[in-house]
Amino acid sequence: MPMLADPSQKYKPFPPVHLPNRQWPSRTLEKPPRWLSTDLRDGNQSLPDPMSIAEKKEYFKKLVDIGFKEIEVAFPSASQIDFDFTRFAVETAPADVAVQVLSPCREDLIKRTVESLTGAKKAIVHIYLATSDCFRNVVFGLTKEESKALAVKCAKLVRSLTKDDPKQQATEWDFEFSPETFSDTDMDYAVEVCEAVKEAWGPTEDRPIIFNLPATVEMATPNIYADQIEYFATHISEREKIAISLHPHNDRGCSVAAAELGQLAGADRVEGCLFGNGERTGNVDLVTLALNLYTQGVSPKLDFSDINSVIDVVEKCNKIPVHARAPYGGALVVCAFSGSHQDAIKKGFNVHEKKVEAAAGKHVHWQLPYLPLDPQDIGRTYEAIIRVNSQSGKGGSAWVILRNLELDLPRGLQVAFSKVVQQRAEVKGQELTNEELCDLFKQEYYIDYEGDNFNDQTYKLIDYSISTPAKGQKEIEAEIQIDDKIVKIKGQGNGQLSAFNAALSKHLNIDLNVKHYHEHSLGVDSNSRAATYIEVSLKNDNVTRWGVGIHEDVSQASFLSLISILNGLHRNKDI
Amino acid sequence: MPMLADPSQKYKPFPPVHLPNRQWPSRTLEKPPRWLSTDLRDGNQSLPDPMSIAEKKEYFKKLVDIGFKEIEVAFPSASQIDFDFTRFAVETAPADVAVQVLSPCREDLIKRTVESLTGAKKAIVHIYLATSDCFRNVVFGLTKEESKALAVKCAKLVRSLTKDDPKQQATEWDFEFSPETFSDTDMDYAVEVCEAVKEAWGPTEDRPIIFNLPATVEMATPNIYADQIEYFATHISEREKIAISLHPHNDRGCSVAAAELGQLAGADRVEGCLFGNGERTGNVDLVTLALNLYTQGVSPKLDFSDINSVIDVVEKCNKIPVHARAPYGGALVVCAFSGSHQDAIKKGFNVHEKKVEAAAGKHVHWQLPYLPLDPQDIGRTYEAIIRVNSQSGKGGSAWVILRNLELDLPRGLQVAFSKVVQQRAEVKGQELTNEELCDLFKQEYYIDYEGDNFNDQTYKLIDYSISTPAKGQKEIEAEIQIDDKIVKIKGQGNGQLSAFNAALSKHLNIDLNVKHYHEHSLGVDSNSRAATYIEVSLKNDNVTRWGVGIHEDVSQASFLSLISILNGLHRNKDI
Repeated sequence: MPMLADPSQKYKPFPPVHLPNRQWPSRTLEKPPRWLSTDLRDGNQSLPDPMSIAEKKEYFKKLVDIGFKEIEVAFPSASQIDFDFTRFAVETAPADVAVQVLSPCREDLIKRTVESLTGAKKAIVHIYLATSDCFRNVVFGLTKEESKALAVKCAKLVRSLTKDDPKQQATEWDFEFSPETFSDTDMDYAVEVCEAVKEAWGPTEDRPIIFNLPATVEMATPNIYADQIEYFATHISEREKIAISLHPHNDRGCSVAAAELGQLAGADRVEGCLFGNGERTGNVDLVTLALNLYTQGVSPKLDFSDINSVIDVVEKCNKIPVHARAPYGGALVVCAFSGSHQDAIKKGFNVHEKKVEAAAGKHVHWQLPYLPLDPQDIGRTYEAIIRVNSQSGKGGSAWVILRNLELDLPRGLQVAFSKVVQQRAEVKGQELTNEELCDLFKQEYYIDYEGDNFNDQTYKLIDYSISTPAKGQKEIEAEIQIDDKIVKIKGQGNGQLSAFNAALSKHLNIDLNVKHYHEHSLGVDSNSRAATYIEVSLKNDNVTRWGVGIHEDVSQASFLSLISILNGLHRNKDI
Repeated sequence: MPMLADPSQKYKPFPPVHLPNRQWPSRTLEKPPRWLSTDLRDGNQSLPDPMSIAEKKEYFKKLVDIGFKEIEVAFPSASQIDFDFTRFAVETAPADVAVQVLSPCREDLIKRTVESLTGAKKAIVHIYLATSDCFRNVVFGLTKEESKALAVKCAKLVRSLTKDDPKQQATEWDFEFSPETFSDTDMDYAVEVCEAVKEAWGPTEDRPIIFNLPATVEMATPNIYADQIEYFATHISEREKIAISLHPHNDRGCSVAAAELGQLAGADRVEGCLFGNGERTGNVDLVTLALNLYTQGVSPKLDFSDINSVIDVVEKCNKIPVHARAPYGGALVVCAFSGSHQDAIKKGFNVHEKKVEAAAGKHVHWQLPYLPLDPQDIGRTYEAIIRVNSQSGKGGSAWVILRNLELDLPRGLQVAFSKVVQQRAEVKGQELTNEELCDLFKQEYYIDYEGDNFNDQTYKLIDYSISTPAKGQKEIEAEIQIDDKIVKIKGQGNGQLSAFNAALSKHLNIDLNVKHYHEHSLGVDSNSRAATYIEVSLKNDNVTRWGVGIHEDVSQASFLSLISILNGLHRNKDI
């Protein structure tokens, strides 16, 4: 097992940042950052099957619809396709959306890059240069001085081609510089290079220069990245003329944390992709970052109220599915399978609905067990929340029955039915769909919900009439069908149900002892039906059994629930 | 757009922890935690299609093989299947593996739970109780005092049924208590309840009590969770008799960060699942946590040296795929598509291989651009690293050609071929496979690599002989085929190649000016072939063209590269 050999000889621990007076751990997130989507650049360049032009256009439109105001669209000097798509973005972007493009620090490529932006209303020229020892030495073979000089030269070139060029005054030009790999760069050198680039560009408070500080590869715990950002933010001069931008990758699975802690440490802007697309493990996921803010009471200024439509575009264009457990968007994320979770959510909804009612239109804080976000806020329905498999308890099935059949099962019936569900789910070895669960319930209790019929239904109620032979006494005459035979039965009691019970007991020679009785209406209009739930025990026996009856006539509903019990007892050979 | 309405009225920001003297941000990770896999409990109960018994057994075996010493296997009081599987785990677990099971705080369920562990060598009874206001009030309707009393009562019950029971002395009993949802619980109350539970259980330094502090739902940034852990760790008494355990969920996408910062804050143990399975967004991903440690030079004491076999079991049993961008395990994670990334990786490998050679068996620190982990350490190959699509540059194609055909292309040829690749990739609209790329290269340069033949090959070399008419002079007589016609040509030069060039030029009435010449051997044995690369320009023309020849005879290889150029020029109608 090579893993168990001492690995310390092959890998070095990442050195911590000396920051004795760090402030970020005591801060909280109180406003959204400037967002930059790099889906069409960093995202697209990492796809096994890159987007077609049509897909890029659709994606761009979606980004604009979501509310992105800064969108990196391409690497225009790299190919004609990238150049042409930049032209499309420039020509179709709304006036308040800045088109950003990327270029390496090479004169010919920078010229071609700026050319692609001609006529833009708002444009951001983004250039990058290796500053980490590893990249400078291994990839480019440049000294620290040479790298800095090259960065300054290119910043001046961009300046001369853009904001200093009299012919380019129709465009609002911004400039972004990325020291690559910032998170693996000597911090003082990163500050030194950025100071020089800042001087070359000449930013103002109104038009700050963007210093994008990428964790090109995530190499340490996210607190280290936050320390680096705070170090940079507190060591660079003219802080008010700078926008500090984060560009975290997810190699260690901590990019969201790195972006959040980096904002606490002073960053103003975040670059990433929807659902974390990008090279290798991807860029930071902007959907998660935005909705994390949302659940803290901070508007992200991005619209994910119809998250399914976002997923549709992302999956279609990237050809990589959003994972079932991706925060907020994953298919399984607003589901609960386990019994205790289902029970808690069900109770939570009841409490919440009562609070909402009592508040009479005023706002009620969202506080539900296991649901940090109201699924309806992102266009997801409650129906998906509770799903039933063999691990589920009574709460889950009861929720599904309530949401689908409007039947609010009493606790004892929930317990009884959950055993039936568990057996069925174990036999199936798979999740039960809502439809299967409802069918199972109707079959188990012989419920004629909407003209349902059951093969193994021995007993049926045909008709009845009630008379009052004496004060406080009811007498019933009923016609019931047993198999194919119609029989008339008759009985008395101090109420209609006890009379019907007496009639049945006498005719069938059994003794049904009613233990629990519940009833509620279904629906709200005057034609609504009643649902009746009855639990009986058989005298001289441990057997108890629930029955359910539904009918427009409350009395008939209660009779039907006794008939339901008879059918169940007969199927189980208890009578 | 409902998202853009002010959401602060619906969601509350999570309150920070008052911890003015916090220590964790200055610490680093230096040892692995105790790992607990809850794949078979928390993981399994969240699956649309829960595992079959056979799948559970296979999964359990894999967990043992990976090196887990604490495995939560079930909720044995919940169903017969869970009870039976616990029995299987108890009966088959190696002597050093503790079987952990979960129970709510109910007397009958605790009894059934302990019963399932009879005869275990090492067992951990894990009970949980709601301590957060939301869960206590909404779900259970218990006051703080009632909850604490119930926790103490159940701890005493477990004690009486396990370590205090004379009949249970064959088992090493440990006890775990989870205050649910810890991360949403008033910290002082969490400490208060745990103090009482600790007293009831009576831990020792040798057998510490496990306090598992779940972020049942991730509700805040991970630094807050770390603050909570540090608060708990510094406020609980008898710290030496306690193992602090983390159980982070991933609702905000920060569970890995929460687990890492939580360890910095004092935690000893982490509960999670392979690839982050679990309710909703899942539990923390133990693969990422372990390999994150590994790349910091700390052995995780878990074996992921064959990560593909782990993925196979996980995907088969969970029926949920590992995402293509999941850290370490994702299919796209050791891939690079973009040109600049490919170029950097290629250079990085060259530097690394030279370092390894120079070190002569001593260890060399891994430091490669874009690859924080050597893919071979987790059983992944280098072949997958660089993949080629229309976004790729010269480096990527060159890497594939080098790895597959052993041809180390000179830079100019890389540039020339990358244009061919880009065109093909744009036409295909999809990633090119390594095979397609190699075929494209062979076709483009008419390389007879292993008996390859090309339809559009106009020129072929049949045979040649060399003589030395004068000192420093070579004369060649060669037979070449042009279309179906064999012709004899003859020429002189100061070397064989220039003689062959002269012969061709004279016969075809062209003027080939050799600009670059490279050659290297293929393979290492004495029968190895030579590869020759030649770039020529046509006199009085801007056209340059590369040719490639491979042959056991170095001279013939160089002649073939000129023939390769002729074929290319002819196809492009340049001659």
